[in-house]
Amino acid sequence: MSREVALAARPQGEPMESDFELRESAPTEPRDGEVLVRNVFVSVDPYMRGRMTGVRTYVPGFEVGDVIDGGAVGRVVASRHDGFAEGDWVSSQLGWREEGIAAGDRLRKLDPLLAPPSTALGVLGMTGFTAWVGLTLIGEAKEGETVYVSGAAGAVGSVAVQIAKLRGLNVIGSAGSPAKVEWLESLGVEAFDYRETAAKDALAGGIDLYFDNVGGEQLEAALSALRPFGRVIACGAISRYNDERAESGPRNLGFVVTKRLRIQGFIVTDHFDRFGDFGDEVGAWVRDGKLTHRETIVDGLENAPAAFAGLFHGDNTGKMLVRVGPDES
Amino acid sequence: MSREVALAARPQGEPMESDFELRESAPTEPRDGEVLVRNVFVSVDPYMRGRMTGVRTYVPGFEVGDVIDGGAVGRVVASRHDGFAEGDWVSSQLGWREEGIAAGDRLRKLDPLLAPPSTALGVLGMTGFTAWVGLTLIGEAKEGETVYVSGAAGAVGSVAVQIAKLRGLNVIGSAGSPAKVEWLESLGVEAFDYRETAAKDALAGGIDLYFDNVGGEQLEAALSALRPFGRVIACGAISRYNDERAESGPRNLGFVVTKRLRIQGFIVTDHFDRFGDFGDEVGAWVRDGKLTHRETIVDGLENAPAAFAGLFHGDNTGKMLVRVGPDES
Repeated sequence: MSREVALAARPQGEPMESDFELRESAPTEPRDGEVLVRNVFVSVDPYMRGRMTGVRTYVPGFEVGDVIDGGAVGRVVASRHDGFAEGDWVSSQLGWREEGIAAGDRLRKLDPLLAPPSTALGVLGMTGFTAWVGLTLIGEAKEGETVYVSGAAGAVGSVAVQIAKLRGLNVIGSAGSPAKVEWLESLGVEAFDYRETAAKDALAGGIDLYFDNVGGEQLEAALSALRPFGRVIACGAISRYNDERAESGPRNLGFVVTKRLRIQGFIVTDHFDRFGDFGDEVGAWVRDGKLTHRETIVDGLENAPAAFAGLFHGDNTGKMLVRVGPDES
Repeated sequence: MSREVALAARPQGEPMESDFELRESAPTEPRDGEVLVRNVFVSVDPYMRGRMTGVRTYVPGFEVGDVIDGGAVGRVVASRHDGFAEGDWVSSQLGWREEGIAAGDRLRKLDPLLAPPSTALGVLGMTGFTAWVGLTLIGEAKEGETVYVSGAAGAVGSVAVQIAKLRGLNVIGSAGSPAKVEWLESLGVEAFDYRETAAKDALAGGIDLYFDNVGGEQLEAALSALRPFGRVIACGAISRYNDERAESGPRNLGFVVTKRLRIQGFIVTDHFDRFGDFGDEVGAWVRDGKLTHRETIVDGLENAPAAFAGLFHGDNTGKMLVRVGPDES
């Protein structure tokens, strides 16, 4: 039997463990073109919170009873697709389950000699690609500019700050603990703890770009700090995802006109045509040791709901992953 | 003696007549390269409210005692610049005064046979150019899209709706009186009175673009109505200019991410290099009678403060002008 985690109730405010149900599913066999995969790591991501509300946005919402879909990496147990053989590492969207069947055409084979397979969920996967798309295509970041990244020690933020440094930007980052700030400083980031220092003080020197993972007060402070023609890369707003009612927006949106600002949202999946460019650039940096990453790993599928809830308390440094099985095939 | 209007006190909230002072200035003579101009029309514009707060944004703020600078058209009384002769019509930034001296290089000569000179302050001047830049360069409006224009019977809005119609967009516009709505309907606009109809109801069919002249509730309704990849052309926020304290922003900025929206501010003077393109396109439409305009004309320089204050109550249909002298040279 394989275990899986399904939505048991729509979270009200912060997600609770009781909003999820751990259950077993009977084994099945792959049909032609399909592959049976045993997950090793599954991803927990802030965007999943939106899907749990049941509102369709850019992806369908989860219904109560649905297994939580999402990024996963694992190993092939049985294959009826020419592209995959038993033991191969693959990345999939199989989500919060120990084992699952996927169409081979929906899988991406990973080379464990090039990079640890878990990086396909982090720095070399959707997470890192999100940072790359945001800076490159949405923010049009230029050498010599100053970018502020909130949630800078998080999965996306920690890649964004490093790409920005490697491209010759000045980088300011905020995080929520002294240890995270220290890590960011070791990456060359001018980091501050937003619990100790008001963003408006930390940004008093002005910024050209704001990579927004957080929303709320950080966005308001950034709008004040942005120089003329500044851009906001609207990636996420983790501070707001658990709001039970819509909260007011920033009081200083008038700066958008007077400073000719651009606030632009994006969803990384719209930009898949550039995944190869991302992989070439960031993959080389990772192999050369110029771009590092951290993972916060929680063991056991049964702990996926707690790991997910922990994202909203900053429990992760870098990418949060749940290890659901052994590495060995 | 020539009369002029100066700032007497910084307005608190709504501008009052007591915030301005009508005074006389002694006549002066143009020096080499200068031109003495007698104004016929002077412009009152919402953006002037921001300059009265004394905060430097994209233009310096007014100091108490300063004459209110701004767009004006008039006739040359005496010229010491080769490009201008007595009697010529010119457009200038001489602002709220009956007569003034300007460097000839800062004047633009107008041909009264091509279009009435007052249009250099409206449909064929900065006002019309603002509408053109917003739709063309900021919003990248495309045939077949649906645009919502707030303040649609105002100076900028009434040009924006017509340019959009001529380019094959579906146009929804809001205004604040039945007469304005009727005028907009005569232009082919699907118009509504925002005092009678909630914007969210009027926009329930969805929009691709929002040309924002108003801010506040209209912006919030537009963010909800925008389709994926929609754009907000952030031109102004007349509903907020008299706020005495910063009011909260829209509660639904989260749509920027989920719908991949772009909110972009602009200041028309950054785009002067395109003024020729604007003049070619819109000038032809005006000459051919395809694009019409209205003016709300208040007589007498002494009434400029009241005309200005009236902008915030929707006293104008189309461009608000103050006539400060006769047409005849």
